[in-house]
Amino acid sequence: MSVTTVPDRERANQQATDRMLEADPVLVDLRPAIDVVPGMTRETVLTSGAPMPWEHYTGGQRNAVIGGALFEGLAADPEEADAKLRDGSIRLGACHDFGCVGSLAGIYTASMPVFVVENRAHGNVAFCNSFEGSSPKRLNYGVYDEDVRESLLFLQDVAAPVLAEALRGAEGGIPLKPIIRRALNMGDELHSRNAAATLLFTRELLPHLLEVSGRRPDETRRTVAFMVDNDYFFLRLSMAASKSVADAARDVEGSSIVTAMTFSCREFAIRLSGMGDEWFRSGLPEVEAKLAEGFTTEDIELMGGESIINETVGLGGFAQAAAFPLQDYQGGSPEQMVANTLRMYEITVAEHPTYRIPALSFRGTPVGIDVERVVGTGIAPLMDVGIAGRNGGQIGAGLMTAPMACFETAAAAFRERYPSASATP
Amino acid sequence: MSVTTVPDRERANQQATDRMLEADPVLVDLRPAIDVVPGMTRETVLTSGAPMPWEHYTGGQRNAVIGGALFEGLAADPEEADAKLRDGSIRLGACHDFGCVGSLAGIYTASMPVFVVENRAHGNVAFCNSFEGSSPKRLNYGVYDEDVRESLLFLQDVAAPVLAEALRGAEGGIPLKPIIRRALNMGDELHSRNAAATLLFTRELLPHLLEVSGRRPDETRRTVAFMVDNDYFFLRLSMAASKSVADAARDVEGSSIVTAMTFSCREFAIRLSGMGDEWFRSGLPEVEAKLAEGFTTEDIELMGGESIINETVGLGGFAQAAAFPLQDYQGGSPEQMVANTLRMYEITVAEHPTYRIPALSFRGTPVGIDVERVVGTGIAPLMDVGIAGRNGGQIGAGLMTAPMACFETAAAAFRERYPSASATP
Repeated sequence: MSVTTVPDRERANQQATDRMLEADPVLVDLRPAIDVVPGMTRETVLTSGAPMPWEHYTGGQRNAVIGGALFEGLAADPEEADAKLRDGSIRLGACHDFGCVGSLAGIYTASMPVFVVENRAHGNVAFCNSFEGSSPKRLNYGVYDEDVRESLLFLQDVAAPVLAEALRGAEGGIPLKPIIRRALNMGDELHSRNAAATLLFTRELLPHLLEVSGRRPDETRRTVAFMVDNDYFFLRLSMAASKSVADAARDVEGSSIVTAMTFSCREFAIRLSGMGDEWFRSGLPEVEAKLAEGFTTEDIELMGGESIINETVGLGGFAQAAAFPLQDYQGGSPEQMVANTLRMYEITVAEHPTYRIPALSFRGTPVGIDVERVVGTGIAPLMDVGIAGRNGGQIGAGLMTAPMACFETAAAAFRERYPSASATP
Repeated sequence: MSVTTVPDRERANQQATDRMLEADPVLVDLRPAIDVVPGMTRETVLTSGAPMPWEHYTGGQRNAVIGGALFEGLAADPEEADAKLRDGSIRLGACHDFGCVGSLAGIYTASMPVFVVENRAHGNVAFCNSFEGSSPKRLNYGVYDEDVRESLLFLQDVAAPVLAEALRGAEGGIPLKPIIRRALNMGDELHSRNAAATLLFTRELLPHLLEVSGRRPDETRRTVAFMVDNDYFFLRLSMAASKSVADAARDVEGSSIVTAMTFSCREFAIRLSGMGDEWFRSGLPEVEAKLAEGFTTEDIELMGGESIINETVGLGGFAQAAAFPLQDYQGGSPEQMVANTLRMYEITVAEHPTYRIPALSFRGTPVGIDVERVVGTGIAPLMDVGIAGRNGGQIGAGLMTAPMACFETAAAAFRERYPSASATP
């Protein structure tokens, strides 16, 4: 029997992945970010991606950050916002560092209501702000104007108070694991399809909404109209849930499991469980997109995105075989979707005991991306993403393949830190 | 150019099937059967299957008819009910003859609330009464006791008035075609799986339920609790919708399309479009069942069933490839389910332009069972059915294959009536 001074990679990976599999995300609250997000201040604007100097932000993501500052009243106009972001009197933060995950540009400001998801198995908490609505013009898609402002005000002044009051009626919160489990049987992969999860969540909340309706009928009516109009309402809950799941797997000494994937307008980046807070960065990936009529690939602009936290824990692109209706939305065929999911088993170390895929005879979803397997097989994680256009707004959806470069950098750094960790089996 | 005195079978079949494809079922009301079902009387009890003399009903279906008579107050005890059913002072009818379809034993009495579905494309109306709840003990599964009575009273005294009031808030009724279309993308085949359709229907009704809740909070709360507890709530709506679709295809001169399939405790039977009201009967089919623990095939009792109206119009067993989660409920594998649906294309004449199957690259569901194709290929319709036990109650679910004998009899009668109709292509 040999004595090793470094932890065994496989055992460490199993430990990190077990934490993902055992996670028990429960929606417990919905409150302004300033009240619940640790480290949030009145002057903070959060955005997607590994942190960068303000000068590096361009295009839609830059517009979105400035829009967030204007919405929060931190500046009177874009020029003032830019100046304050430069001198640091408006403080720019990376969502992931605040327990948050951003959709597309991923803007959080102090007054925005955020869903609070507690991972009951591990005790950690994660946050996500609300879906803005089905208009293609949204702050997170790089647009800020009077319409966007009104949508955001509706969320914080009408919808959030009603939903928060309903949530308080659900004693102990609303467990998200059973909703995600069932949604995977109903055509959702919880990233680009959340239609079933949204309905299931609405059903859970319904008895409590009836109670709130007794006290504030008009606001409840408007909130319900917003919820039932939006098949993507649940996306932010799946994101917060996945963030709480992924964070539970962080900081396992010797583990090469990916605990975050993110991108900004400039970089894709990942983190590994055994490598602390370090981001391993690369350029932006290619996307294979299905665009709305009138748009071409020339119109595509990547302006950030952290909804791929869902892929990080085995949903989204990893569970495409559960979501054949996506053909309509982002292209592809059932056969390709099955093949995509099967490929993801090659780079992961476990199959989820609760989340199962009907089309694969209820095989568990592939969980626990091992950076060594990614590098060893040359298979990169696949992600289902919404596509923003150069002039802001959503112009389509598609399939993104993570860039291999950041996995190679991460694997090299991992091997340097854990020189005797076992090689890929 | 030859002159024919009989209509061309293929053209007639296309006409009958087109009526099915164009059908536009809309839920318009929910009222006591006596108020809306043509020909219903206070003394009438309807039950599943082609009509038979009372003496031919046995077991659970006989118990259910007697239970219905007792529930309606038509007799003080089972003996009196039996005597009155014998002498005709309680009038026994076949659901199909009253525009109704019965689930399992399929009992309708005068005071039971029925959903009213109008086929806006054709102008005809069909009815179905409500799901009794998730208890295995139900009148339609051959059980009548104090618990069953209370469930039925809850339906007519609490749930039906609330739902009817909510429905009246939905101006123009609730179109069912869009719900069925979406549910087929979400793991339902609308017979043994109605989970998504139930949620989608609840969502449609939700704004109106909030209104009713303002006036009668407690009854609305109880009604919503009943609805959200039942993944099969929508089954009765899919049945009423399918009956309205199938009836639209009746009475097309020269058509060999099946417009009804039904069974009682004793017989399976079908009707053809071009053959008027005649039932073509045979013995009962075999079922391949997945039973609850503790039960064997010895415990299975067929006590009638008309939910197979869904298969008659191309849902249920015909659309299994849309409902892989059924593996859990009734057995089978994704591969078998795809194979089953593919076989159903061989006995049907059309593919539905609106109802599509994601796993088959959105191929339309197989619609329009041609009795000549059934006889020609030797492939019998497949049906997803709930399974009742000898002592009443649901003990499982499974796959039923229609008996070939009634198709052969029907085909022979059809050829006799339409001697120059073209043979199977």
